[in-house]
Amino acid sequence: MKFSIIDKDNRSSARRGILELPHGNLETPVFMPVGTNAAVKGLHHESLDNTGFKLILANTYHLYLRPGMDLIDDFGGIHKFSNWNHNILTDSGGFQVFSLAPFRKIKEDGVYFRSHIDGSYHTLTPEKVVQLQKAFRSDIMMQLDVCTPPDISYKKALEALELTTSWAKRSLIEWQKETPGYAGVLFPIVQGNFYKDLRKRSAEEIVELALPGTAIGGLSVGEEYSKFQDFLSHTVQFLPLDKPRYLMGIGTPEYILDAVENGIDLFDCVLPTRIARNSTVFTPEGTISLKKAKFASSHEPIVEGCGCRACKNYSRAYLRHLFKAGEMLGPMLASEHNLFFLHNMVAEIRQSISENSFSAYKSNFLKRYNSAGSTGKAGN
Amino acid sequence: MKFSIIDKDNRSSARRGILELPHGNLETPVFMPVGTNAAVKGLHHESLDNTGFKLILANTYHLYLRPGMDLIDDFGGIHKFSNWNHNILTDSGGFQVFSLAPFRKIKEDGVYFRSHIDGSYHTLTPEKVVQLQKAFRSDIMMQLDVCTPPDISYKKALEALELTTSWAKRSLIEWQKETPGYAGVLFPIVQGNFYKDLRKRSAEEIVELALPGTAIGGLSVGEEYSKFQDFLSHTVQFLPLDKPRYLMGIGTPEYILDAVENGIDLFDCVLPTRIARNSTVFTPEGTISLKKAKFASSHEPIVEGCGCRACKNYSRAYLRHLFKAGEMLGPMLASEHNLFFLHNMVAEIRQSISENSFSAYKSNFLKRYNSAGSTGKAGN
Repeated sequence: MKFSIIDKDNRSSARRGILELPHGNLETPVFMPVGTNAAVKGLHHESLDNTGFKLILANTYHLYLRPGMDLIDDFGGIHKFSNWNHNILTDSGGFQVFSLAPFRKIKEDGVYFRSHIDGSYHTLTPEKVVQLQKAFRSDIMMQLDVCTPPDISYKKALEALELTTSWAKRSLIEWQKETPGYAGVLFPIVQGNFYKDLRKRSAEEIVELALPGTAIGGLSVGEEYSKFQDFLSHTVQFLPLDKPRYLMGIGTPEYILDAVENGIDLFDCVLPTRIARNSTVFTPEGTISLKKAKFASSHEPIVEGCGCRACKNYSRAYLRHLFKAGEMLGPMLASEHNLFFLHNMVAEIRQSISENSFSAYKSNFLKRYNSAGSTGKAGN
Repeated sequence: MKFSIIDKDNRSSARRGILELPHGNLETPVFMPVGTNAAVKGLHHESLDNTGFKLILANTYHLYLRPGMDLIDDFGGIHKFSNWNHNILTDSGGFQVFSLAPFRKIKEDGVYFRSHIDGSYHTLTPEKVVQLQKAFRSDIMMQLDVCTPPDISYKKALEALELTTSWAKRSLIEWQKETPGYAGVLFPIVQGNFYKDLRKRSAEEIVELALPGTAIGGLSVGEEYSKFQDFLSHTVQFLPLDKPRYLMGIGTPEYILDAVENGIDLFDCVLPTRIARNSTVFTPEGTISLKKAKFASSHEPIVEGCGCRACKNYSRAYLRHLFKAGEMLGPMLASEHNLFFLHNMVAEIRQSISENSFSAYKSNFLKRYNSAGSTGKAGN
């Protein structure tokens, strides 16, 4: 892996770079669509590729439980199994164990949990998680971490941080074991909950490991927006400038702009496709629900001039009809639009960084995005 | 509309033709995918087009109830509303009223029913159904008919037949009224249930109207397979040779072969996409369910050498994984495969007709299709 910063915005920490990974180079900042089960919901791989996505995220927790490591290893990794020939980042499964498993217990050696699919018992250790991601041939693998909700005590936040650091070290050792033909990299994760000294300590401990990149976890987990912004800018200051920074689990336009402004290079989120399946789509004036009666006879596309399949071919009235009739094509087209919208937005952001106009881009974008009042937030 | 028979099989009634319709010419025999709500479930229009489909079916009953005639008319028809630039055949809604509406009453003037969507009261007359299909700009419209189940009395079958003929005449008058810019054609429907004299009488009354084509309704409605075959061959003998013949609601390989053998030119069925959504796919050796454990680690495509998106790109193991994980991509890919399979099969059938080898094609196909025993039937 090689990371080169090619442009820096002179009024913020925003930067533009090239990330060289085993399955091709890509430009940063970059948004990663989420393909939980080695498939992005509602889109063909060709559509992702044609849109310009060259890096998607898959979930280790899900793929470990089903179809399992051995099968994916037998196929030669997720790329070959799912016929996705570009890069793949896999998360560590930690977050999913905490959010999906009906039972979980954290011990020094790893997490013990039951599957949300069939209730079976499992253990994931930092070493096992690295082995899984090596079997998956992940281009970027993540360490197993302990992600905490926003309302826990200092003591618990400290324990989670210490365990995360300890697991990062063990992950590093496992990752460094030679694996013929495998060239993926490991990113450790900064935790520390919403305690500034813990965030600083976590970042410093992680940075000391000198891994190829860094990730920030435990943000956008239910805290207030201003708290997210505060802790994002607080945390990034302790991360090295020359390595790619991944902010986990964010992907709405507002959060993307904050992330880029703070010098984040990679981000992912399920939200764009999740809200699309429920008819909510991005527009430059905020999100809209295609199910609304006011679009019943609209000849307009979702976004005039948008180059996505939905906007090039269909009216809001037709898309609304698809959602009202429960046709699969509705979620398929809306998902494609939302990912296209973010891809295009992030491309504009990269361009604005090169032109030293990121701040203007951000303020213009937000002014327009929030112009329609209550529709400016996802889900309306 | 113009219909030219270009080749005839010398050992059966199979024939190959060119059907010239307002939105382009197409070769017959032809299978029509069903796009109930002006969308074929799980496929992008481009995929249908690229596969080679130039005629799809949409449901008048569904589109009348939602989004309604006025909206589709406002867009200039279903083609423009759904951005499908090839031909569209619309059924009359009669079959759906009988199978979907929670209440319906047949009177001399038309059918009275309640919507399956919201329980609202509606009336469809033969004239109204033609007006609807003109508003839809259907390339081929169907008359409102009375479709009966396989177990009714002679008296009831006769009443349904007489009403169907009466409605055909009224449909003809309404269709002949000048409609600027509209060039679609009307097909009447042969009914008569499972009484041979009634089938003959219905066909003769329908043929007398000298409409551009003929359709056979009320077959494949739950009767035994041998009865279907018997009544199909019995009915077609009373239909003119020089006009296209549409057998409504059939679309499995066995039924398609019977239809073609009897000189049928058009057919449609929801089954290929419906079974696909439940993981059942066509292969030359019969249908298989991709969910089966025996495919869990299969590197093979659904069908070796098949040119569809699913077979060119994915293994049975990956497709099984998608179905097990509930990923939309599973139904999307399986639906595309099943339609591709039928499109390809019907193309081979046309070729065999030109080469006077249809009978051999049929027997070879069925021998192989039924070779795997119980897996030779859809749904297994």
